[in-house]
Amino acid sequence: MNDHGLSYFEDYALGSTYECGSVSIDQASIIAFAKEFDPQPFHVDPVAAAAGPYGGLIASGWHTAALVMRLLVENYLAAESSLGSAGLDELRWPNPVRPGDTLRVRATVVESRRSVSKPDRGIVKTLVEAASTGGATVMRATAINFILVRPDPGA
Amino acid sequence: MNDHGLSYFEDYALGSTYECGSVSIDQASIIAFAKEFDPQPFHVDPVAAAAGPYGGLIASGWHTAALVMRLLVENYLAAESSLGSAGLDELRWPNPVRPGDTLRVRATVVESRRSVSKPDRGIVKTLVEAASTGGATVMRATAINFILVRPDPGA
Repeated sequence: MNDHGLSYFEDYALGSTYECGSVSIDQASIIAFAKEFDPQPFHVDPVAAAAGPYGGLIASGWHTAALVMRLLVENYLAAESSLGSAGLDELRWPNPVRPGDTLRVRATVVESRRSVSKPDRGIVKTLVEAASTGGATVMRATAINFILVRPDPGA
Repeated sequence: MNDHGLSYFEDYALGSTYECGSVSIDQASIIAFAKEFDPQPFHVDPVAAAAGPYGGLIASGWHTAALVMRLLVENYLAAESSLGSAGLDELRWPNPVRPGDTLRVRATVVESRRSVSKPDRGIVKTLVEAASTGGATVMRATAINFILVRPDPGA
């Protein structure tokens, strides 16, 4: 069970919103991630980035997504029930993440239904939103997760 | 210009498909990525994973996405014209990625239009598909990218 008391599918109540904490991102980690996975000039080269489309270095969207995921694992999903994800809809990075930003993450249950084909689980859709220091939304997506239903104590 | 001759917006022809190379993934890198960003048991603990929903360790979907991105940067996007991405639609991980898998990535231009508000660029939508060693699709998404139009030589 996590700090929000979320443990099994039944706990993810439609419309509920959960604050999932925050994470800071510095220039060194932006460059290190991007050198490995997304080596575009505006992610890896501060000088080129300053003259580029964003007027400075910005984080790879995949780095932002990975940091958001960490907060969801720690504060929203539960190890005893999370069965992984089918994917996400409408993943967006509306504003850039820059060195020194702190991201706050919030999760809202927007759909919840029991699986017909696999009755041990439900399908939860979650609006995931990340905001940076100034309040601008830096990531938004609807995640689709499979989550075990509470075990029958009589089983 | 990359190996496919893609340099500016005009080069991304609707319906064209580009093979973007391959990348292998081992257990150590799966665990290292997931410990940092997605520490769920089936991503970080081989013993727990063997008894878990996938019968063994699988890669975080975000790790798969990051590896796919690397191949897109190297073989599809062009440093002189890529302005970043608004996001992706229908990101899916239909099958798990396991240690030792090799992922092949393919990109198909599914939509291409000149920006009305910013005439220096176009918006390219790309169906991105990754297949694992056995041919199973392990990731699929439609990426939305901003790409500079070819500079006017008379300008």
